[in-house]
Amino acid sequence: MSNEKNSKKLVEEITPRDTDFAQWYTDIVKKAELMDYSSVRGCMIMEPYGYAIWENITKILDQKFKETGHENISMPMFIPESLLQKEKDHIEGFAPEVAWVTHGGSQELQERLCVRPTSETLFCEHYAKKIHSWRDLPKLYNQWCSVVRWEKTTRPFLRSVEFHWQEGHTVHATELEAMQETQNMQKLYADFCEKTLDMPVIQGQKTESEKFAGAEFTYTVEAMMYDGKALQSATSHYFGDKFARAFDITFQDKNNNTQYAYQTSWGISTRIIGGIIMTHGDDRGLVLPPDIAPVQVMIIPIAMHKAGVSEKSLEIQEKLNKICRVKTDFTDKSPGWKFAEHEMRGVPIRLEIGPKDIENNQCVLVRRDNFEKITVNLDTLEENIIKTLKEIKNNMYQKALDNLNSKIYIAKNKQEFNDITKNKTGFIKAHWCGSPECEQEIKNNTNFTSRCIIKDTENCTCVNCNKKSKHEVYWAKSY
Amino acid sequence: MSNEKNSKKLVEEITPRDTDFAQWYTDIVKKAELMDYSSVRGCMIMEPYGYAIWENITKILDQKFKETGHENISMPMFIPESLLQKEKDHIEGFAPEVAWVTHGGSQELQERLCVRPTSETLFCEHYAKKIHSWRDLPKLYNQWCSVVRWEKTTRPFLRSVEFHWQEGHTVHATELEAMQETQNMQKLYADFCEKTLDMPVIQGQKTESEKFAGAEFTYTVEAMMYDGKALQSATSHYFGDKFARAFDITFQDKNNNTQYAYQTSWGISTRIIGGIIMTHGDDRGLVLPPDIAPVQVMIIPIAMHKAGVSEKSLEIQEKLNKICRVKTDFTDKSPGWKFAEHEMRGVPIRLEIGPKDIENNQCVLVRRDNFEKITVNLDTLEENIIKTLKEIKNNMYQKALDNLNSKIYIAKNKQEFNDITKNKTGFIKAHWCGSPECEQEIKNNTNFTSRCIIKDTENCTCVNCNKKSKHEVYWAKSY
Repeated sequence: MSNEKNSKKLVEEITPRDTDFAQWYTDIVKKAELMDYSSVRGCMIMEPYGYAIWENITKILDQKFKETGHENISMPMFIPESLLQKEKDHIEGFAPEVAWVTHGGSQELQERLCVRPTSETLFCEHYAKKIHSWRDLPKLYNQWCSVVRWEKTTRPFLRSVEFHWQEGHTVHATELEAMQETQNMQKLYADFCEKTLDMPVIQGQKTESEKFAGAEFTYTVEAMMYDGKALQSATSHYFGDKFARAFDITFQDKNNNTQYAYQTSWGISTRIIGGIIMTHGDDRGLVLPPDIAPVQVMIIPIAMHKAGVSEKSLEIQEKLNKICRVKTDFTDKSPGWKFAEHEMRGVPIRLEIGPKDIENNQCVLVRRDNFEKITVNLDTLEENIIKTLKEIKNNMYQKALDNLNSKIYIAKNKQEFNDITKNKTGFIKAHWCGSPECEQEIKNNTNFTSRCIIKDTENCTCVNCNKKSKHEVYWAKSY
Repeated sequence: MSNEKNSKKLVEEITPRDTDFAQWYTDIVKKAELMDYSSVRGCMIMEPYGYAIWENITKILDQKFKETGHENISMPMFIPESLLQKEKDHIEGFAPEVAWVTHGGSQELQERLCVRPTSETLFCEHYAKKIHSWRDLPKLYNQWCSVVRWEKTTRPFLRSVEFHWQEGHTVHATELEAMQETQNMQKLYADFCEKTLDMPVIQGQKTESEKFAGAEFTYTVEAMMYDGKALQSATSHYFGDKFARAFDITFQDKNNNTQYAYQTSWGISTRIIGGIIMTHGDDRGLVLPPDIAPVQVMIIPIAMHKAGVSEKSLEIQEKLNKICRVKTDFTDKSPGWKFAEHEMRGVPIRLEIGPKDIENNQCVLVRRDNFEKITVNLDTLEENIIKTLKEIKNNMYQKALDNLNSKIYIAKNKQEFNDITKNKTGFIKAHWCGSPECEQEIKNNTNFTSRCIIKDTENCTCVNCNKKSKHEVYWAKSY
């Protein structure tokens, strides 16, 4: 009884989404034990359940990177100050937010080392040493690591001083090849978000003021959260030969001419876990995309003390183990508590199996995404699980897409733009003249920033200054 | 022709093992492109081939950890100075060799942060928060990460300022359970070295002066390198309730009494790659254990321009792809160059396939470990590859075991001990009274250190002071 009361409490402790979205988010992160705070300001502990989600993400992405010819390497975590300063736009962007190591043991260092905020400079230094001929190209390297940016305000997954990510860094003989790589990686990320994380995205180029420090241009993949705000989910940068010139990365081409090389970099981080939570979660807690859920099917034995229940549960677990990630909850908590707990933790499918079910060679299957409850014959359980996981994916994607589509607005002039920003959250499609001043003014007035360029336009007018428009742009509040 | 000359040169550039073992080691690391130096003193770049070895090691170990109930988590890379100081033996051991972050952005920090040299303190802080009841135990956590120790002299893989490792940290309700965990992990490591890396080891407890800073006792797994020196390959520490008392990690037991918890930690690092090189390598370069070789079978097409050769090579590759890690070298280098290159890189099996072989439905299989060359019918290629990979493993293990056994000496007194240390390298079995003074004297006089305790003894005399012996101990020079 008291357990039943507690299980209700477990859920009630999550603030409803529509009451306070920020608190709802924090509640889920804490209660699902994804992350814990550490005594280091802005640095988080990824707990087993949160880290398992990240492990599943890395496994799938790593395979995709390798299938497209990329190799993993590992760079030092430190960058000497002089090396960080070699490319001027890059240092301007990152210097204000790096952590500095000044002492090793009891000795003061002759040159300070920053803890990498990103590793372009280290990769460039290495490439300058290793690349001599067209035969050495392309170099398609990737690194899984954590980086540090001295952020002032932090939030679990979304913004932290240290965070995990992968950073791809590639070098090519031609502009075209490097541009294609930049685009291919953008597409790979978008595909990953949509097909693996069931998270619809918009894609396009960042404006000049929003691009990566040192890049010629940046592609972005942006998802819309339940509350209508945008989350930059992954980015892919084209550097041209800018870093190659700063770091002297040259090669002999087939005609024996010395050429500068062309480069890209691209990354996705643990921030995407925040995106998963805010795209799919509901008032009962997490709803995890089946492809990255640490546990896809949780078996809950009912009346566990009765003969045969535990055995049958284990038997089902062993059978399902071949087709999915499955566990059985054998703890002494009540079934009601277990239902609430695994719902809160976002497990896609729950199977209930009790003495009556066993008698009838069946079990009860409950979907996390829509709480649909069906009775399934144990002989057809495996095919039902496979089918249901697919249906859950489709439904989750469709729900998120409906949310996205229902919150896209069009603004033709300043009045319309301001009205929308005052009354709604979501993405606004609006034309823009291309001037950084207009972009800044829109941001100052509305807190909406340009997310990405949709397309180049003519014969339209800028939503801010009424002058001739250059691009149609998605604008939104963002995390 | 000039290619043939070059391929000889590629091999000749490796210093022979018996001429200068240290230089031989460095040559291999550089030429096989395992690691490159960076501009950060003592920090290395793991290049794709070296990193792929580490990836294979981590995959196999990670699975073993998970099979034995361990979960991965991620801790911050920084430790506040006050937290590091909480356990006094621990801080004494590590304080002299940590890197200190003193500034974040342009601000000086109120409290310095060290870059983790190991993460006991962070885990303990987290455990103190999370553990309340016997139901919360055991906690079996592991973390894959890099750590930093401000070493003065560094060598690729063997000793570097930053290195990759895993660190397991577990908490248990009883002394017995924690002791068993310590032992189980030692055994898991020994098993991994012997069965996966084909590297025979000795095992036992460290002496007081050689144990981990803060531990009650430390188990070690030690391998012998080709030159007779010892390499500490993995360690497993038992903490008793020492850290629990310092960090106040308590729980209510089943009788509602408050108890301190018992802890362990255990780790293996990229240093083991140095061990693989120095155990198995020869004058032609690396010899990689099949289980962790990035490429297990390299196909070399002969007379690639002739009709059908490339096609047949690809066909074989696709077939073998199902049973092993296989690649085909389609570059325009000469076959001779390719033979030398992939031998140098330690690829376990080379397959040569030319027009004549195709005519006869066969190929030539060459083993890296003993250069044995056999002709294999293509119809039985798969079973031959599987069999040969096993034979290579057995042979590599046996060769390393023979080296180990041929270099174990017994010293009954100081004279014998000193004679051996002057004329031989290897492991010396000798009795010891247990006093740190004798241990230090032996180290000062001979550079031989205690590697591990073999067994407790009575009725014997210490090899240094002639007093009554407490333990029989393995002594060796070490990396």
